[in-house]
Amino acid sequence: MKKPTWVVDKERAKRSAANETLWLFGLHAVRDALVNPNRKKLRLLVTRNASDRLAEAIAQSGMTPEIEDARKFSAPLAAESVHQGAALEVRPLDWGAFEDVCATGAGAPLVVLLDRVTDPHNVGAVLRSAEVFGARAVVATRQHAVPETGALAKTASGALERQPYLRVTNLADAMLALKRMGFVVLGLDGEAETTLSAALAEAGTRPIALVLGAEGPGLREKTKETCDHLVRIPYGGAFGSLNVSNAAAISLYAATVAR
Amino acid sequence: MKKPTWVVDKERAKRSAANETLWLFGLHAVRDALVNPNRKKLRLLVTRNASDRLAEAIAQSGMTPEIEDARKFSAPLAAESVHQGAALEVRPLDWGAFEDVCATGAGAPLVVLLDRVTDPHNVGAVLRSAEVFGARAVVATRQHAVPETGALAKTASGALERQPYLRVTNLADAMLALKRMGFVVLGLDGEAETTLSAALAEAGTRPIALVLGAEGPGLREKTKETCDHLVRIPYGGAFGSLNVSNAAAISLYAATVAR
Repeated sequence: MKKPTWVVDKERAKRSAANETLWLFGLHAVRDALVNPNRKKLRLLVTRNASDRLAEAIAQSGMTPEIEDARKFSAPLAAESVHQGAALEVRPLDWGAFEDVCATGAGAPLVVLLDRVTDPHNVGAVLRSAEVFGARAVVATRQHAVPETGALAKTASGALERQPYLRVTNLADAMLALKRMGFVVLGLDGEAETTLSAALAEAGTRPIALVLGAEGPGLREKTKETCDHLVRIPYGGAFGSLNVSNAAAISLYAATVAR
Repeated sequence: MKKPTWVVDKERAKRSAANETLWLFGLHAVRDALVNPNRKKLRLLVTRNASDRLAEAIAQSGMTPEIEDARKFSAPLAAESVHQGAALEVRPLDWGAFEDVCATGAGAPLVVLLDRVTDPHNVGAVLRSAEVFGARAVVATRQHAVPETGALAKTASGALERQPYLRVTNLADAMLALKRMGFVVLGLDGEAETTLSAALAEAGTRPIALVLGAEGPGLREKTKETCDHLVRIPYGGAFGSLNVSNAAAISLYAATVAR
C-alpha cells in the first residue's frame, strides 16, 4: 500500500533534519563547540594561525583539522562572517524533548519563551542571560524564530553550546504544557497592570515561565490569552521601551534574585 | 605676544567642536530629532516617500526638506547605513555641565557611567534602558567611548534625543565629583563579594551611580579603586557572563524597583 503524502512529507522532513548541518565560525564559537562532547562535529577548517590558537581545544576534540590558506578561506560562510580563520561544520544540538528538559532538566525551574523574536542578536543575548541565571531552557517556535546558525552561535558567545535552546511547533501548546507541569506563566507586556515583582511574589516558590514578544508587535493575542498573568516592568521614565534582551535579563534577575 | 601652542590647540579644538556636525539617518531617528526642539538641525535630505512618511515631524520642525532621488541618495553616509530615504544633518546635543545634570537634572537620582564601552549597539541599548528607568545621565569618557553618531542614534532608537549622554575627560574625576554630591558609586564586577542588592539596600535612599566596564577587560584598576563598593549580579548558572547592556538594565531595575 502506498503511504499517504503527509506521511511521506513527514518522513522526508525527519530525514532532512537528521542530515542538517551548520557551520560555526569565529575562534570563540568554534572553541566552545570543539570542547562540547554533546556536539557532533563533522569538518574543521582552520588557518595555520587559528590552528595554533585552538590547539588545546582541537586536541581535546580529537579532530583532524584541514589547514586553509588565510587568503582563500574556503568554508561556505556568508561574506560578512568574521570567521577569524576558523570554521566548524556541526550538527544541531539535540537537547531532548521539550517536556523532559523543562520538567526535570538541569538548572533552576525557570524557562524563557520567545514569541516571534527574529533578531539573532537579541536571541543570542537572551541565551547568554538564560545561561547566567541557570534557566532550564529558552523556547522558541520552529517558524518565525531564529534557527541555530553560526551567526546565532557567535552572538550567543558560547551560550548556544551550554544553554538548551528548544524549538516547538506551537507556542501556546508549549505554554499549556508548562502550566500542567506547575509553572506559572508570565507574559511581559508594557500595558499590563500587574508588575513583574508583584506576580513573582504571588507565585512564591513555584516554577516560572517568562514569555517575551518581539519589539513593536509584542505578544500575539493567542499568546497573551494563554498566560497566567500579563506583567510589566515598572518604568521610572516617561518615554522609551526596553530592548527585548534587556527585558529578558531583568525578568530573569527578578525571578532568580529579587523574590 | 604670541599665544603658546597649547592655547592655540585648545582654541582650535573648541572651534572645531562648535562646528562639529553629524548625520542622523533612518525614519525613526530622523523623526525623533525633527521633533526635538533642543536639537540644532542643519539639512534634511529625504526621498519623496520618506518626506510623506515624515510629513508631520517635518511640519513641526519648520525645516524645508531637500527631496532626493531614492536611487542616488546623496547624504554622506557609510555604505551599510540603512537610511530608509531620510538623513538629517545636526549638531551634537548640548546637555549642559556634567555636575548640573547629575546634581539637579530631571529624573531619578541615578546615573550610569561607562568605562571604555566601545560598541555602539551596547551603548545604544544602555541609553534606552537609562531612559526607561528615568536615569539622569549616561556618562562616558571623551576618548575610548562611543561618540554621538548616526549609528548610535539608530541603535538608541530615539533615546539619544531624550536621554542625557555626557562625555567627560576623566572617569575617575567624574566619580569623585559624584561622591561629593552624595552619590553612592557602585562598580559592577563579576568577581566582587558584595551583591548588587545588598549594596543597594545599604545605600538606602541615597543617589546611586552605576559603573560598568566593557566585556572582557571589565573596569580599569583606577575605576575600581574609585568606587565606593564593587558589586556583582548573583548568578544562578555555572558559566557565562552577561552582555554589558543586560548588566546595565538589571542594575537600573534593581536600583529603581528592587530596593
